[in-house]
Amino acid sequence: MAQEIERKFRVAGEFRGEAVGAERITQGYLCSVPERTVRVRIKGSQGYLTIKGIGNETGVARYEWEQAIPLADAEALLALCEPGVIDKLRHRVPAGGHVFEVDEFFGENAGLVLAEVELSSEDEAFERPAWLGEEVTGDARYYNAVLMKQPFSRW
Amino acid sequence: MAQEIERKFRVAGEFRGEAVGAERITQGYLCSVPERTVRVRIKGSQGYLTIKGIGNETGVARYEWEQAIPLADAEALLALCEPGVIDKLRHRVPAGGHVFEVDEFFGENAGLVLAEVELSSEDEAFERPAWLGEEVTGDARYYNAVLMKQPFSRW
Repeated sequence: MAQEIERKFRVAGEFRGEAVGAERITQGYLCSVPERTVRVRIKGSQGYLTIKGIGNETGVARYEWEQAIPLADAEALLALCEPGVIDKLRHRVPAGGHVFEVDEFFGENAGLVLAEVELSSEDEAFERPAWLGEEVTGDARYYNAVLMKQPFSRW
Repeated sequence: MAQEIERKFRVAGEFRGEAVGAERITQGYLCSVPERTVRVRIKGSQGYLTIKGIGNETGVARYEWEQAIPLADAEALLALCEPGVIDKLRHRVPAGGHVFEVDEFFGENAGLVLAEVELSSEDEAFERPAWLGEEVTGDARYYNAVLMKQPFSRW
């Protein structure tokens, strides 16, 4: 059980020229209430099970527990998930001393691109690349568990 | 991911003379809807995370995925669970070729004693010890996830 400290942004420019790689992510939710989420994810050929608590008042820090699980288990658990699935390509884009994770969404969330940077403390400084748009940290509409139910194409 | 095949009964007599051991179990639920449950359990000094799907039409077979997790993780995840906790002593009681798990509940479920036997197929025969009461397999009131919300003392 660790605390996840991250800030989230819309992407407002071309980032692909700076990307060093990408992986396809498919994920669903066994539980997606505001108080807690239980997520099943397939990233490349590896499965993951991730449990997150509620965010703190700024939305920056959130308890997170994650464990790698076999791909076959993740596929079986995805079939148990709530209806709806998130499908995205996660690009790794270095900037300053950090690596931004830039999620390009498909399916019902096509057109949405979000960047996240993980920090070691809430007030850690980081370089803002030119393509970084408005900050949406703590805005529940951008939670993947919410995007599954209220996708970007229906906003 | 395996299929769990088990039958559940009320206990209507004295079983303790035949018990070979017992362990305290504390558990909570991250998710407890009819379609799926995500359970955090502490059994003795070991943590477990267990995900179950919906039961089949007879209520005997249910998909189940379980993984052992560190005790400290289980304690932290219990704090994220829905309100209410199940506290019980699980006795192991052999009978014929099977070992019944007899759960003696405490707290708001005090007075309730349930026995479960795990089978390798739905029609596998098993010996019925004298203390075994009425079968309650598939009766949702006896699901631990339901007992947490509608405890026996309030029936």
